[in-house]
Amino acid sequence: MSVPSGDPRARLAAPHTLSHSFEPLTPTAFLRRAARVHRDRLALVDGERRITYAELERRTLGLAGSLAARAEQGERVAVLATNSSVLLEAHYAVPFAGAVMVPLNHRLAVPELSYILEHSRATLLLCDEGLAARGEEVAAALGGGLEVVVEGEGYEQLVAAGEGFEPEPPQETGLLSLNYTSGTTGRPKGVMYHHRGAYLQALAMAWHARLEPGSRFLWTLPMFHCHGWCFTWAVTAAGGTHVCLRETQPKAIWAAIESESITHLNAAPTLLLSIAATAPSLVAHRATSEGVPPIRVATGGAPPTPTLLAELAELGIEVTHLYGLTETFGPVAICEWKPEWDALPGERRAALKARQGVGNLIAEPLRVLDAEDADVPADGETVGEVAVRGNDVMLGYYEDPEATNAALRGGLFHTGDLGVMHPDGYVELRDRAKDVIVSGGENVSSVELEAALASHPAVFEVAVVPAPHPRWGERPVAYVVLRPGQSAAAEDLNAHVRERLAGFKAPDAYEFRAELPKTATGKVRKFVLRDEAKALQLDQSPSC
Amino acid sequence: MSVPSGDPRARLAAPHTLSHSFEPLTPTAFLRRAARVHRDRLALVDGERRITYAELERRTLGLAGSLAARAEQGERVAVLATNSSVLLEAHYAVPFAGAVMVPLNHRLAVPELSYILEHSRATLLLCDEGLAARGEEVAAALGGGLEVVVEGEGYEQLVAAGEGFEPEPPQETGLLSLNYTSGTTGRPKGVMYHHRGAYLQALAMAWHARLEPGSRFLWTLPMFHCHGWCFTWAVTAAGGTHVCLRETQPKAIWAAIESESITHLNAAPTLLLSIAATAPSLVAHRATSEGVPPIRVATGGAPPTPTLLAELAELGIEVTHLYGLTETFGPVAICEWKPEWDALPGERRAALKARQGVGNLIAEPLRVLDAEDADVPADGETVGEVAVRGNDVMLGYYEDPEATNAALRGGLFHTGDLGVMHPDGYVELRDRAKDVIVSGGENVSSVELEAALASHPAVFEVAVVPAPHPRWGERPVAYVVLRPGQSAAAEDLNAHVRERLAGFKAPDAYEFRAELPKTATGKVRKFVLRDEAKALQLDQSPSC
Repeated sequence: MSVPSGDPRARLAAPHTLSHSFEPLTPTAFLRRAARVHRDRLALVDGERRITYAELERRTLGLAGSLAARAEQGERVAVLATNSSVLLEAHYAVPFAGAVMVPLNHRLAVPELSYILEHSRATLLLCDEGLAARGEEVAAALGGGLEVVVEGEGYEQLVAAGEGFEPEPPQETGLLSLNYTSGTTGRPKGVMYHHRGAYLQALAMAWHARLEPGSRFLWTLPMFHCHGWCFTWAVTAAGGTHVCLRETQPKAIWAAIESESITHLNAAPTLLLSIAATAPSLVAHRATSEGVPPIRVATGGAPPTPTLLAELAELGIEVTHLYGLTETFGPVAICEWKPEWDALPGERRAALKARQGVGNLIAEPLRVLDAEDADVPADGETVGEVAVRGNDVMLGYYEDPEATNAALRGGLFHTGDLGVMHPDGYVELRDRAKDVIVSGGENVSSVELEAALASHPAVFEVAVVPAPHPRWGERPVAYVVLRPGQSAAAEDLNAHVRERLAGFKAPDAYEFRAELPKTATGKVRKFVLRDEAKALQLDQSPSC
Repeated sequence: MSVPSGDPRARLAAPHTLSHSFEPLTPTAFLRRAARVHRDRLALVDGERRITYAELERRTLGLAGSLAARAEQGERVAVLATNSSVLLEAHYAVPFAGAVMVPLNHRLAVPELSYILEHSRATLLLCDEGLAARGEEVAAALGGGLEVVVEGEGYEQLVAAGEGFEPEPPQETGLLSLNYTSGTTGRPKGVMYHHRGAYLQALAMAWHARLEPGSRFLWTLPMFHCHGWCFTWAVTAAGGTHVCLRETQPKAIWAAIESESITHLNAAPTLLLSIAATAPSLVAHRATSEGVPPIRVATGGAPPTPTLLAELAELGIEVTHLYGLTETFGPVAICEWKPEWDALPGERRAALKARQGVGNLIAEPLRVLDAEDADVPADGETVGEVAVRGNDVMLGYYEDPEATNAALRGGLFHTGDLGVMHPDGYVELRDRAKDVIVSGGENVSSVELEAALASHPAVFEVAVVPAPHPRWGERPVAYVVLRPGQSAAAEDLNAHVRERLAGFKAPDAYEFRAELPKTATGKVRKFVLRDEAKALQLDQSPSC
């Protein structure tokens, strides 16, 4: 019953495990299975390109063969790409090769990219066509040591050269990828993902999203961001089809939804707002007809507002609210919906859906901790820091023991997000720690203010940040985008807020904008607004 | 980043793992999660009894506390119960306590049960009310050393006494349970299940069966059999409701389907035949109306026939065909359905559905091997032995190194089932391992029966083969050669068998012959007898 020493798994498995009953968990296993079970079914659509699962396996094993031949185990392979076949293929080829994937945010500037490539010690950079020039620019900035391979001839040569490669099973808690977070402070940190976490997270996502072999998933969420919340592997696990979208304009999204019969997509609420605003009238009509299944949308980054939920429901779009961070393989939490909630009034349903929820199927419970890392009471009122541990938590930050120790103190990952624990065990965020506005010693929640303002009919989008105030320390300022054709004055909005919240919470200033600064994943870049707000001369008259 | 030595996981996790990013996989985790997320939702219905998830956790932790207090880690706790709350609770309480579960087939005779209890070294036996007398009988037969706790007062005392118990995480590849199987050879073997396999198998089942928080699963498949194909944990993972059925008569099944709004059940084709034959006319009517979701049924043990599939479709019952063995945590394979197959003609669909299929979501690929353990060609014609390895394969047979080494030779579990590999990668069985008789989904070992009959003084030689039976699928038939000068009637032999084995195993017919057909080397040519047995008209009266 012992493992034969010639077995490659002998050195990988813990001593007590047996090769016949132990296979390391790795997300590439889902492609191996799909290539057997769904071999002639469509894995991937990218413009004109249509690739079956058998072909996706053949291509990624070929690329892996070339990668494995040119370097040692653990080589860093970075990818600079939009939501394209190149980026999806890298999710399989790089780990097949025993290499470590470094997905890059293509909206970063050359100095930021250079920093990440240098810090991760990447030796190879894969680029899609549209980002080839940028890739070369970064390589030049690094002054050598980084080989660039661009989609097309060079890339296809690698695919062809490695044909017939057979990968070795990885160590399941070994390093899978480095995901650099665009931390709001200082240098980006390299979040270390492991195979086991990605495998289990993908299983959880496949189940929660109800992905099936007939599913057609539209890539609007960037694949470079937490590996697209691990849907890069979850869709494959289910045997569904990945539909890539290199440019995520709402019109292109609607065109793809129609032409590719999309069943699922993931997007931040900001993108969903644009999607709802540009829906073809046809869609609303069709959505109301019987027998048309809803499009399942997972959203995160900010809670969906009641208004947005109502608009999407009219389009036949069913929203699941997820919550997570790069450090937790994306969605560690889900606002898990209970069948009996369907019968509640719309407003109550929206309030329940705005909560970040509970640990996902494979996650450990979310906790909300006070300053001494003790659980706060589950009263829906006491604010604490959200923390979690478990199989979908990072190994640590690459070569940054100080940040690692700080984030993982006490064996728990501290998210930096502030929230409350409701009596029913669901967590609701109140704010990022840094987004709380401390006015005269009182905490004012920017999220709460944003929800109040978003419920005004003229408001399309809003972000609230603190501005320095000589008397109160900080006071809230609202940055508002109005709906096209609508108007509202600061006084109107202020009256609206004061009907809903304590007077001291109402913003001191309203700044009207055509659009808000956003990250690639659609999150409002609040630090930009905070910087702007610093320049405001807030009135010294009593605000509270 | 090292694991603090005070952390209980320090000794459990492999050295390279970190407690913040590593939690041992164990199926009890699904109850911990359900008790948080679905706390007030119904976990369990058993007659009048209705238990929420919070209550199920409280009760099983209490029982676990009592179990942990009375014995060491790794104690064997056997369970003799129908599909009842007692048996479901044991699936959580026993592993919570760090003990090893031994589920018993309640149809076995006292000597068989005694053998299993002795072999497994069980010290405690939990019984449901209806099997209390049998439990006491077995304990008496063992002559001490086995404590019996019966549903009701004694059981509730254990539940209450251990309240507040907090379980320790197990070693994930450690022993979870011993599942005794009456395979092809005489004595039952104790199949060793591990936590990791049960966890992953439950996740796969939850996904394949499309279990959801609103699911209501009817327990017709025995929970003692491969832990009910791991649905004892999968339904909990999904947050669905377990509906227990202590007696699985078709009328009771239909009554439960109606009164408990059942969405899912598992059953062998033999039981499905009875279910189809006794459907209330109301059901067929309702099933044809729009908007009524189908009842999802998973079946295994034998392929569903086209007639059965057609009858079930008319009742709004959607069938998934699974395949597995006790050694593979139940369904290691699934006939995974592809959306495009829906458009095929009914006969073709039935032929596709009759195949055992492909490895499930978390399983490794099924293989079909020739005598030298090389893969047979995927031509749909070459017959070989089905074999598999992976995370849902047993550790081995308890204290039976010989049988373990034979079954796991070359690091692969050899199923003893013969099949072909189709060109599309789906496996189809051609023959059960030739000596096993599958009666009503239960394995009856011909070798075991032959041994029992051969022990009768008048029997010279005997061979047992299956004969087709309209209700049970197969029933055993014994071909007997009497000793010269001796005589015995069928009734005598039957009484002899029933003294030694469970009643359901006793042959339905005894054919007396002067000699048995043999090969040149003296082996009984069983296929000749099987052919003869096909012509027998077995009585339709209940055999079991």
